[in-house]
Amino acid sequence: MEDVKRPWEKLISLMKGNQAEQLNEYLKSMKTEDIVLSISRLDKEKQLQLLTLLSPEDAAELLEDIPEYHAADIMEDMEADKAAAIFNELDSDNQADLLTEMEEEEAEAILSQMEPEEAESARRLIKYDPDTAGGMMITEFLSFDEHHTVGHVVRELRENAHEYEGYNLQYIYVTRQGRLEGVLQMRDLLLSTTETHLDKIVHPDVISVKDTATLRELINFVNDYDFYGAPVTNDEGVLVGVVLRRDILDAKSEKANIELLETQGIVGGEELRTMPVLLRSRRRLSWLSVNILLNILAASVIAFHQDVLSSVIALAVFLPIISDMSGCSGNQAVAVSLRELSLGVIRPFEVVRVWLQEFSVGILNGLVLGVLIGLVAFLWKGSLVLSFIVGGALMLNTIVAVSIGGTIPLILRRFGTDPALASGPILTTITDMFGFFLTLTFASLALSQFGGI
Amino acid sequence: MEDVKRPWEKLISLMKGNQAEQLNEYLKSMKTEDIVLSISRLDKEKQLQLLTLLSPEDAAELLEDIPEYHAADIMEDMEADKAAAIFNELDSDNQADLLTEMEEEEAEAILSQMEPEEAESARRLIKYDPDTAGGMMITEFLSFDEHHTVGHVVRELRENAHEYEGYNLQYIYVTRQGRLEGVLQMRDLLLSTTETHLDKIVHPDVISVKDTATLRELINFVNDYDFYGAPVTNDEGVLVGVVLRRDILDAKSEKANIELLETQGIVGGEELRTMPVLLRSRRRLSWLSVNILLNILAASVIAFHQDVLSSVIALAVFLPIISDMSGCSGNQAVAVSLRELSLGVIRPFEVVRVWLQEFSVGILNGLVLGVLIGLVAFLWKGSLVLSFIVGGALMLNTIVAVSIGGTIPLILRRFGTDPALASGPILTTITDMFGFFLTLTFASLALSQFGGI
Repeated sequence: MEDVKRPWEKLISLMKGNQAEQLNEYLKSMKTEDIVLSISRLDKEKQLQLLTLLSPEDAAELLEDIPEYHAADIMEDMEADKAAAIFNELDSDNQADLLTEMEEEEAEAILSQMEPEEAESARRLIKYDPDTAGGMMITEFLSFDEHHTVGHVVRELRENAHEYEGYNLQYIYVTRQGRLEGVLQMRDLLLSTTETHLDKIVHPDVISVKDTATLRELINFVNDYDFYGAPVTNDEGVLVGVVLRRDILDAKSEKANIELLETQGIVGGEELRTMPVLLRSRRRLSWLSVNILLNILAASVIAFHQDVLSSVIALAVFLPIISDMSGCSGNQAVAVSLRELSLGVIRPFEVVRVWLQEFSVGILNGLVLGVLIGLVAFLWKGSLVLSFIVGGALMLNTIVAVSIGGTIPLILRRFGTDPALASGPILTTITDMFGFFLTLTFASLALSQFGGI
Repeated sequence: MEDVKRPWEKLISLMKGNQAEQLNEYLKSMKTEDIVLSISRLDKEKQLQLLTLLSPEDAAELLEDIPEYHAADIMEDMEADKAAAIFNELDSDNQADLLTEMEEEEAEAILSQMEPEEAESARRLIKYDPDTAGGMMITEFLSFDEHHTVGHVVRELRENAHEYEGYNLQYIYVTRQGRLEGVLQMRDLLLSTTETHLDKIVHPDVISVKDTATLRELINFVNDYDFYGAPVTNDEGVLVGVVLRRDILDAKSEKANIELLETQGIVGGEELRTMPVLLRSRRRLSWLSVNILLNILAASVIAFHQDVLSSVIALAVFLPIISDMSGCSGNQAVAVSLRELSLGVIRPFEVVRVWLQEFSVGILNGLVLGVLIGLVAFLWKGSLVLSFIVGGALMLNTIVAVSIGGTIPLILRRFGTDPALASGPILTTITDMFGFFLTLTFASLALSQFGGI
């Protein structure tokens, strides 16, 4: 395949000629990465044209390759009947994910035009929180009531081979009045006579997860067991779906990415530059505007000490350094705590333990940074007093910063708040206030004790 | 299973009684998460005692559950012959990962005591970069030369069933003088007569990856294809291993976690609080000390304008706010660019495109934040001039910050530098300098033009 820098231009030229077949062929030859890039480069009209030119099956395949936000955004603008035809071909978990991303009205319009069976399963799935087993499971799985015979199952598989094409046939689930009773492997069928009833050969020790199981529990599940996936049951023990290992692992890496966005103040989980500017601006501002208020609060500490500052104007040079460096030291500790929480090597209740461990790093790094900044102050102004004021303030504030940074994610998690989003602003507000307070208090003491610096 | 808050205490009590069997049973009943936590809570001596009490097989299984750094750290302190017995039982990719984490001397001591075959394969694997197909592949796979018959293969599988226990038998690779020729599925064997030569039934259209393929290429591979794994070949086309989808997905989520640590200034990829304090302190300082120098550089802009500052001391209150808020706005843009780079919706060469998109967000958010801070300045001091100085400076600097924040990850990536680690410090240094410069220059202009604020 030719390696083109702007593959979307080729798509556009094929669309111009209405060359549906070549278009489909070219799309099939493209790497997923290039598809993602190309779709994001087409305008809405071209995106709609492309999906309409393809067969519903091919269009569904294309939609599954691109980020959810993009896919939902395009489908919202498609006529409901055409969109429904494509939705019929999507995997059940993708149907639910896209419908959840859409405006309710558009989603309802599509649902009402979908095949009744598909629509019903989609309606069931969108009720679940996307980050639970119910929200991540697929409903394409094989299950038979235990009173059936092996022969019935084999016949059913043979007769509906086309329908089961996309199914993973490694496991066949056995139920009693809908409740999960056990599991069979394909080879169990082959080794049994056709008259055998399923309840005679079923393996009853099947491990299932609840439909309300959280992503965290599912990650633990794939760590603990080696299955390609797990059957999902509801409160009554009824088998409602299968959650695949690969979907859990994908959600896990997605979660780490979202956490990265959140620690940097992107609210709402995801931002792509193809989103409308106003939406992006508003979401970023919702975090920035809280932050600027906290910043003003912190800076008010300086306002209360203007007299000291005007006597020792050199301090104004060091205040932003102390604020910024304490933020850096604290955020390092935040990152390590977030990481350890997700690895499971610390638990939210271990605040004291983590604090003690950060404290020793804080003393070491506080000493080094304090001496460094003190040295710079001395070289610049030749004043040992100034040097002790800023060095001492940075040293103490580094200890405070790593103490807070290490423990605040645990405390927030205990209170059920998202530590990735809130840790940073809380940390920097406290360390800024404390840093300014230390510096200016030390300076005012020095002023009154020694009569000027 | 009882849900204990401190499962490591139960481990210690079982170890005290030398109850190897109960110990093993208890470990098997534990969730991976609790194992990870418990091992990190034991001191070195207890960790060694635990692993020695278990059989090498069980010890190997335990090691595969805990973070690499922990596992390598424990094995370094074990007698080489005991460690080698456990290493013999590890999967080949885990052998290589742990040996790479160890001091060379200790790794060599263990290698020299391992079974020759295992040691040879481990020596081959540790030569690869851990983030390539070679570094992630396993060498436990089935391959046969094409001149063999189906009967030979089936006999071989039956006779060595024990050896192949942990293997994934879904695919059998067919080679000619070591070079990968194609693939067979188990059912191909069942449907052929025992005299058939493999070259008659092999599927030659096998998709393989090079041993030098990067993680990024491997992620694209699993996006493009639906296989459970891919055969890995070297420069000569010789089949050297198999890289599994699950290992690629694990590495992907690991990479997102590492990126989170790096954006917050944790150098070296990983930090756990069980690492020695001095090591943790040193690694954090290596980033902090660069940062403090950049901070001093930025603050020197203030030093050059001390005269302005001493005439309008209120500015000292706003300088840290402008510095901090610009950093926040810029880091939001950094996070979105890192995310879009990893999703593949932007490419490193699209600097201008990204800049234009950030620019419009920058204008909107700059306006809002500028007006906000201007309002605060006016309410506090009643001076419209002060209000315009700080509001204007923050507005312009927000635009600069998002422009740099959005584009710097792309530029760094183009120069082959890690954008997660370096984007933040470069961004804040430039925006600090520019923010201080704007504020103080505006103020000095106002001073000279209007004769005081």
